[in-house]
Amino acid sequence: MKLNPLGDRVVIKPLEMEEVTKGGIVIPDTAKEKSQEGIVIAVGSGRLLENGTRVPLEVKVNDRVVYSKYGGSEFKDAGEEYLILSERDILAIIER
Amino acid sequence: MKLNPLGDRVVIKPLEMEEVTKGGIVIPDTAKEKSQEGIVIAVGSGRLLENGTRVPLEVKVNDRVVYSKYGGSEFKDAGEEYLILSERDILAIIER
Amino acid sequence: MKLNPLGDRVVIKPLEMEEVTKGGIVIPDTAKEKSQEGIVIAVGSGRLLENGTRVPLEVKVNDRVVYSKYGGSEFKDAGEEYLILSERDILAIIER
Amino acid sequence: MKLNPLGDRVVIKPLEMEEVTKGGIVIPDTAKEKSQEGIVIAVGSGRLLENGTRVPLEVKVNDRVVYSKYGGSEFKDAGEEYLILSERDILAIIER
Amino acid sequence: MKLNPLGDRVVIKPLEMEEVTKGGIVIPDTAKEKSQEGIVIAVGSGRLLENGTRVPLEVKVNDRVVYSKYGGSEFKDAGEEYLILSERDILAIIER
Amino acid sequence: MKLNPLGDRVVIKPLEMEEVTKGGIVIPDTAKEKSQEGIVIAVGSGRLLENGTRVPLEVKVNDRVVYSKYGGSEFKDAGEEYLILSERDILAIIER
Amino acid sequence: MKLNPLGDRVVIKPLEMEEVTKGGIVIPDTAKEKSQEGIVIAVGSGRLLENGTRVPLEVKVNDRVVYSKYGGSEFKDAGEEYLILSERDILAIIER
Repeated sequence: MKLNPLGDRVVIKPLEMEEVTKGGIVIPDTAKEKSQEGIVIAVGSGRLLENGTRVPLEVKVNDRVVYSKYGGSEFKDAGEEYLILSERDILAIIER
Repeated sequence: MKLNPLGDRVVIKPLEMEEVTKGGIVIPDTAKEKSQEGIVIAVGSGRLLENGTRVPLEVKVNDRVVYSKYGGSEFKDAGEEYLILSERDILAIIER
Repeated sequence: MKLNPLGDRVVIKPLEMEEVTKGGIVIPDTAKEKSQEGIVIAVGSGRLLENGTRVPLEVKVNDRVVYSKYGGSEFKDAGEEYLILSERDILAIIER
Repeated sequence: MKLNPLGDRVVIKPLEMEEVTKGGIVIPDTAKEKSQEGIVIAVGSGRLLENGTRVPLEVKVNDRVVYSKYGGSEFKDAGEEYLILSERDILAIIER
Repeated sequence: MKLNPLGDRVVIKPLEMEEVTKGGIVIPDTAKEKSQEGIVIAVGSGRLLENGTRVPLEVKVNDRVVYSKYGGSEFKDAGEEYLILSERDILAIIER
Repeated sequence: MKLNPLGDRVVIKPLEMEEVTKGGIVIPDTAKEKSQEGIVIAVGSGRLLENGTRVPLEVKVNDRVVYSKYGGSEFKDAGEEYLILSERDILAIIER
Repeated sequence: MKLNPLGDRVVIKPLEMEEVTKGGIVIPDTAKEKSQEGIVIAVGSGRLLENGTRVPLEVKVNDRVVYSKYGGSEFKDAGEEYLILSERDILAIIER
């Protein structure tokens, strides 16, 4: 199976993260949006600007990325779970 | 009967999917948007940009696509059910 | 009486549809927007783009169209009921 | 008294309509926006586009128009009631 | 004291109006926005368009205007009450 | 300490105002936004337009300004309280 | 580990602030947005304008900044907590 996302969409394979909740800094009285890590599986043709040009995405296949936990649509195939989200829901590329 | 969708609209025949709920990865504390698969039946003339040019759609008739479960309008004809949605509600073209 | 809709507005005469509810495919856990059919009675001068050009509408008088059930304004004349809606609420032209 | 509306504003004198509720077609399970008729009393200089040009309005003084019942601001003068609304709340010009 | 409003802002001295509620036409089942009259005290440099040009306001000092009752910010000075609002909240210039 | 606000941001030192509530005109049935006075401490580089040019702010350091009470973010330093807000939340420059 | 934020995103290391609540000026009846300080760890390639040009960010690595407490997404790595936010949530650069 191959997924070709449209426009500024990106297909992500979420990484299973161990829940990190060891004390640490706690910023009081804010309810921050959580982020999550994953691997880029496929990227769309780019964002279409109002002047008609298409801007290639900044992420590429195999990039490890941090994305907002509250964006995108789930897609399941053969028991695997993917996420299809707009590039604007991707926060950063992470190098480890 | 023939449906000619307007602008960036696309007519989809939804595929009946077996409900895949075998364990798998569960991303906790997020309520992800669900996706669905279907076949493209007809496509509109394209999205009209503010500069007056029309951009042809990225999907074409017979493409198998993944789309967001929460977009579009139902259309019924001869007992068959179709979905008319904007291309921005289509997430990816899928090749199996 | 003659109605000349403004801009991208379209006047529609709704068609009375028999309620089609014979089993068929039911897409679970989504509340899809319903569509409705009607005949185009009059069309406006077109949508005005921000660059000042007016784009003629894609629909024309006598087209049979599918439109979203939740758009537009009712207009009653001589016991007849019309709908005035923006072209963006029209989903497709239908040929039977 | 003379009212000179600004920009794309239009001054309307609402027409008193007999409440037409004789059976007729009832489109079930939709709550359509109601429309109302009135006479155009004054028009503004036109809508200002982002490129700096002003687009004259499509309606003119003495036009009989159909407008959305839920737009605009009331203005009272000498016991008379007027409506000042944006041209985008006017649906159509009506010729009887 | 002198107030120099910014951009498309306008300073208004509201006029005390006798509450006009003598019968008259009542448009049923609509909750219209109320309007109010006032005198223009000062005007800003104009609205800045996205192309970088500034468009002078249509109103000028001493104009008597009708404005929407639900826009703007109150400003009090020496027991006097002013309103600072965007030109888009001004509906019309009134000549009596 | 020096604060260099970004873009169209402005740093304001709020002025302590005596609460002026001596009778005066009361505009009934409106809940107007309150305004507040302050001194401009620092200004940003200007608003960035979509065409890529930066427009210098209309206010400058030491201007006494009226701003909307419900915009901006508080910033505290050495027991002093500042407000950082976008120029669009500043209503007028005041000369006394 | 290295984080390369996308577009107009910025990675921030929040500073632990002593809670400053010594009397001081209290502006009554407003619920101001709180601000917070942090150090810029990484910056994105810049904001993409609709004309296709990318505008470099105003902040750079090691800048000490004030940002709105209610923007951005948390990111945790090795027990450290970071914030990834859009440059528009950064209010000012602070020099101490």
